[in-house]
Amino acid sequence: MNIFLNDYNDFGSKEIYDEISKIFDEKISGYGLDEISNSARELILKEIGRDANIEFISGGTATNILATTFCLRPHEAVLSASTGHITHHETGSIEATGHKVVTIKTSDGKIRASEIKDLVENQPGEIDVKIKVVYISQTTEVGTIYSLEEIKEIYRVCVEKNLYLYIDGARIAHAMAANNTKLSDYAKYSHIFSIGGTKNGALFGEALVILEEDLKEDFRYYLKQRGAMMAKTFLIGLSFKVLFEDGLYYRNAKKAYEMSRLLVEGLKEIGREPLFGESNQIFIRSNPDEIKKLEKENIFEIDNKKDSIIRLVTNYRTTEEDVRGFLNSIKN
Amino acid sequence: MNIFLNDYNDFGSKEIYDEISKIFDEKISGYGLDEISNSARELILKEIGRDANIEFISGGTATNILATTFCLRPHEAVLSASTGHITHHETGSIEATGHKVVTIKTSDGKIRASEIKDLVENQPGEIDVKIKVVYISQTTEVGTIYSLEEIKEIYRVCVEKNLYLYIDGARIAHAMAANNTKLSDYAKYSHIFSIGGTKNGALFGEALVILEEDLKEDFRYYLKQRGAMMAKTFLIGLSFKVLFEDGLYYRNAKKAYEMSRLLVEGLKEIGREPLFGESNQIFIRSNPDEIKKLEKENIFEIDNKKDSIIRLVTNYRTTEEDVRGFLNSIKN
Amino acid sequence: MNIFLNDYNDFGSKEIYDEISKIFDEKISGYGLDEISNSARELILKEIGRDANIEFISGGTATNILATTFCLRPHEAVLSASTGHITHHETGSIEATGHKVVTIKTSDGKIRASEIKDLVENQPGEIDVKIKVVYISQTTEVGTIYSLEEIKEIYRVCVEKNLYLYIDGARIAHAMAANNTKLSDYAKYSHIFSIGGTKNGALFGEALVILEEDLKEDFRYYLKQRGAMMAKTFLIGLSFKVLFEDGLYYRNAKKAYEMSRLLVEGLKEIGREPLFGESNQIFIRSNPDEIKKLEKENIFEIDNKKDSIIRLVTNYRTTEEDVRGFLNSIKN
Amino acid sequence: MNIFLNDYNDFGSKEIYDEISKIFDEKISGYGLDEISNSARELILKEIGRDANIEFISGGTATNILATTFCLRPHEAVLSASTGHITHHETGSIEATGHKVVTIKTSDGKIRASEIKDLVENQPGEIDVKIKVVYISQTTEVGTIYSLEEIKEIYRVCVEKNLYLYIDGARIAHAMAANNTKLSDYAKYSHIFSIGGTKNGALFGEALVILEEDLKEDFRYYLKQRGAMMAKTFLIGLSFKVLFEDGLYYRNAKKAYEMSRLLVEGLKEIGREPLFGESNQIFIRSNPDEIKKLEKENIFEIDNKKDSIIRLVTNYRTTEEDVRGFLNSIKN
Repeated sequence: MNIFLNDYNDFGSKEIYDEISKIFDEKISGYGLDEISNSARELILKEIGRDANIEFISGGTATNILATTFCLRPHEAVLSASTGHITHHETGSIEATGHKVVTIKTSDGKIRASEIKDLVENQPGEIDVKIKVVYISQTTEVGTIYSLEEIKEIYRVCVEKNLYLYIDGARIAHAMAANNTKLSDYAKYSHIFSIGGTKNGALFGEALVILEEDLKEDFRYYLKQRGAMMAKTFLIGLSFKVLFEDGLYYRNAKKAYEMSRLLVEGLKEIGREPLFGESNQIFIRSNPDEIKKLEKENIFEIDNKKDSIIRLVTNYRTTEEDVRGFLNSIKN
Repeated sequence: MNIFLNDYNDFGSKEIYDEISKIFDEKISGYGLDEISNSARELILKEIGRDANIEFISGGTATNILATTFCLRPHEAVLSASTGHITHHETGSIEATGHKVVTIKTSDGKIRASEIKDLVENQPGEIDVKIKVVYISQTTEVGTIYSLEEIKEIYRVCVEKNLYLYIDGARIAHAMAANNTKLSDYAKYSHIFSIGGTKNGALFGEALVILEEDLKEDFRYYLKQRGAMMAKTFLIGLSFKVLFEDGLYYRNAKKAYEMSRLLVEGLKEIGREPLFGESNQIFIRSNPDEIKKLEKENIFEIDNKKDSIIRLVTNYRTTEEDVRGFLNSIKN
Repeated sequence: MNIFLNDYNDFGSKEIYDEISKIFDEKISGYGLDEISNSARELILKEIGRDANIEFISGGTATNILATTFCLRPHEAVLSASTGHITHHETGSIEATGHKVVTIKTSDGKIRASEIKDLVENQPGEIDVKIKVVYISQTTEVGTIYSLEEIKEIYRVCVEKNLYLYIDGARIAHAMAANNTKLSDYAKYSHIFSIGGTKNGALFGEALVILEEDLKEDFRYYLKQRGAMMAKTFLIGLSFKVLFEDGLYYRNAKKAYEMSRLLVEGLKEIGREPLFGESNQIFIRSNPDEIKKLEKENIFEIDNKKDSIIRLVTNYRTTEEDVRGFLNSIKN
Repeated sequence: MNIFLNDYNDFGSKEIYDEISKIFDEKISGYGLDEISNSARELILKEIGRDANIEFISGGTATNILATTFCLRPHEAVLSASTGHITHHETGSIEATGHKVVTIKTSDGKIRASEIKDLVENQPGEIDVKIKVVYISQTTEVGTIYSLEEIKEIYRVCVEKNLYLYIDGARIAHAMAANNTKLSDYAKYSHIFSIGGTKNGALFGEALVILEEDLKEDFRYYLKQRGAMMAKTFLIGLSFKVLFEDGLYYRNAKKAYEMSRLLVEGLKEIGREPLFGESNQIFIRSNPDEIKKLEKENIFEIDNKKDSIIRLVTNYRTTEEDVRGFLNSIKN
């Protein structure tokens, strides 16, 4: 079978286990206060080139909840694209903390700086919520990528309007592989952002980078309160230490990206241009019969049953054989 | 000045004060457990013709919060038209209780039974919230009115899909004046609904009619917890007693409706057909210059500044002079 | 029957209705933005002698929720005496907003400045909540009264420890009648406090006085979100206007206090010293047989069934006949 | 250094890594729906001897939040010992979901069935919260252990009073090692309970066993909403598979327990009877000077600084050398 199901279906990079075996007998402090996690923090700080607090969190949804809602007063809200992960794939997790998610309709998964500005300037006052946090995801849920210019512009509006910009970087590695942005760029043009590990070879977990002073203070109380402070946080710290020690994080993403290019090119050659395909998530329109046929030799997700849109995801373990295998299936 | 600002800008029906003066020296029990409130309950029960629990609540937003969220488990959500009062005019009050409001786009303020069915049948499962309560308002926020047939159909879908139907009746009196529905109709085709007092001559307050057994149990705990159980609830009970004792509630609404018809006919005669004007809220398209002129002799709300849409509201105190006055202003 | 049930069992001071009858035909703006409410605000500001935002709210529980939780970040908590109204009589209303109430055990309803200091200095950090708001009630739930010196001391600790002090003044009038404190004292030594109307002759409602700048900003959003912004807030505004126009507020409380003194003295004379009896709530120990006997001619609440403690409340409508009547019942 | 810091300061049992290395190249489904997790479920079901839903969750606080609050209506509360983990060590996590934790004062970490009964029977009604869930922890936070008889009695009261009993089994393995109870006992006498992995050799994570039908329905929605459904849940599933495949779970706990007995006996011999020492957490009273001395050769936690109470924890990696080392330090 050729596997394009998702980017978190394995045990993570081999190098992480090699590191564990080296220090297997060590006793390590809990709750992310250990030396391993601190080493990982230092490596990340070096990449981003500025001061920040870094917390290691077990998964993406927990990270998004914590990052967007810690700073909100009761009447404040989060702004997101209508395709945003927090609005459709996280079971009302933001609302469960007591805050509304206001959405901007989008077809390509991205919101524009001008749309944020318009919306904020036309808020009706005390009869409605007040937008305080802007949520964007890089790459987006439909596989598109914000250019650095677009993010700068969004950040500029956020600063002007006294909003916080949070970038959900569950797949930020894949964005960086595609458009040559750097972690230091994201650290410059946001107030808080995450660096995804789960989808790029970590054992599991995400790193949350808190840049804004107001968001740093007492953040760990919230981490604990929401059940997101793991006793064995050092497992995530260790993953990030290994991933950032000598560039493994970037190599993993590069591999995923290269495989996605191979796939996109192959699809174009046979006249099957993807709907969205800038990063390691490729969406193509199919039909029920073809899907049935493809499923015999390939594993993937049906993104939209009604329109027969399927999603193909490459990751650092995807092989050229996988890609060629899929292309062969679809050609026949 | 001709006043069309809203339907809650006065002290309420004179008859209520007459009643208070009669019993001014009485001592009355608190928290809605008094005899006056009980008399009001009995009068309402007679109107609706079936068993129900009735609570008296100080305002519409509190009533909506309590009615829609008491029965929800953490992952359950409320469905509303995109124009619903709970989504745009109540500052995220539902989300503040931890629950998402899912909206259906609408131009006339109404949702269709088929839309509810479609939406519920296509819910994606545990990655998204689960719809449990359907919120509709009668009359709607844009002044349109659900026919009894439409409500029956919505109720049928709700029962089929195991949802609760809540009807926000802040202006239910005005709907009844317009389309000859009765309180007993609403009691037959909903699980919980409110009878608005604030906008139809009460001192203040709403009556919430709880029909569904599951929603009755322990409801008063929630009333108390949300700060909505007033010590002097008897003031609301007394309002409803007076309003329902000899049909004042219906006479008030009839007067408001008649004045609204006079206004609509007058507008049509001069070629100014309202955008929406089925009930006591009349929306007409104007322009900035005309609005400036109209404001000299009339008091009203600008509903949509960008499109120069103004709202004219009649109530039980509106006079023919008010209506003629406005029509004269707009003619000149 | 001699009535000592509570202090909110009537329609309020006659003077309020006289005022309503004078302006019965006026049209008044909604949501507390009207001229009547503004006049009431000015009268209160004159009493407190400093700048403040004043909101009129329908009841005590709503007032307490809004005042204590608006300023809290997710991990912050409210500190209260174990007898505090917010911990035992409001159905978990504070917790329902997501915040813990930390309690200090007390026998007389009061917390000491030193206890607050100790508790705050010994908080264990991120594994527990962080105290941010101190809640005290004046008079307390057991009828005791904080001296001005005690409140000053508590305020001093709050300022030192960066906490907010909220004084629940549901019965602040009765405290002022008893110990000669003034509203200006409370405005000097708290960050936010309420002035009770419901229990001292208002139609209904409380005035919340917001002194601290951080608590002023956007407060009305929260008022709306929690369903506590009444369309006809002017009814509360009018009550406070009448109560403060020529000292009626103080006269009402003075009357209640005088009647409570008459009662306490009478009780002492017959060897029935109250457990707590500094203000208009008098608690005495009885026994099941005596209670049965007393209930024949008197109306009161049993505060603690197990220990046969009953509560007698005087208010501005209590008469000397009521008091003498009760004393006769208990003597026989 | 002799390490008695806690029971989660290592990478987990070696056998887990052996298993991972065997299947390192496999692709595995996400979100706990994989075959490995299902194998673990089957193994656990065999132990408990009855039907149940089993979810794997990353940590104890998340497990406690989910288990205690999913079933609550807004006004319902959780009952806990005053020493309960959910009241003092989880940063108001239960209150953050909107629910109060009612506590029963205890000196030994345990609540009695009769206390629950008394409390529930004397609830004052709608002015206070309503208890719905009883939380107990096995072993308790002070290292004591409920006998099977005590748990049976608590469960009986819960069933009688229509409450749910949740047993926090973060250290249930150590209880079973001490008192010969079995998982099937806990499954018989509770509605929902957890089996701790983090503190007994798992990579990380807990298994939540849901027995009650009402708690099963839609539980995974809540898991997702609270950010507790990990993409790579299979890591927890795998840990439990290995732990339960051939009794490793019990062997680990037995080792920890034996070491704790060695320690307790050694302490008794030198006249240092522990305050609480029934399980793998041993609490002894020390003094500031001794603590300073002990810290030179031993690592442990100071549980109560004021009273100089220290906590010694043994786990499956504790050695006789550790124990003897500590005893030597304290003798000298």
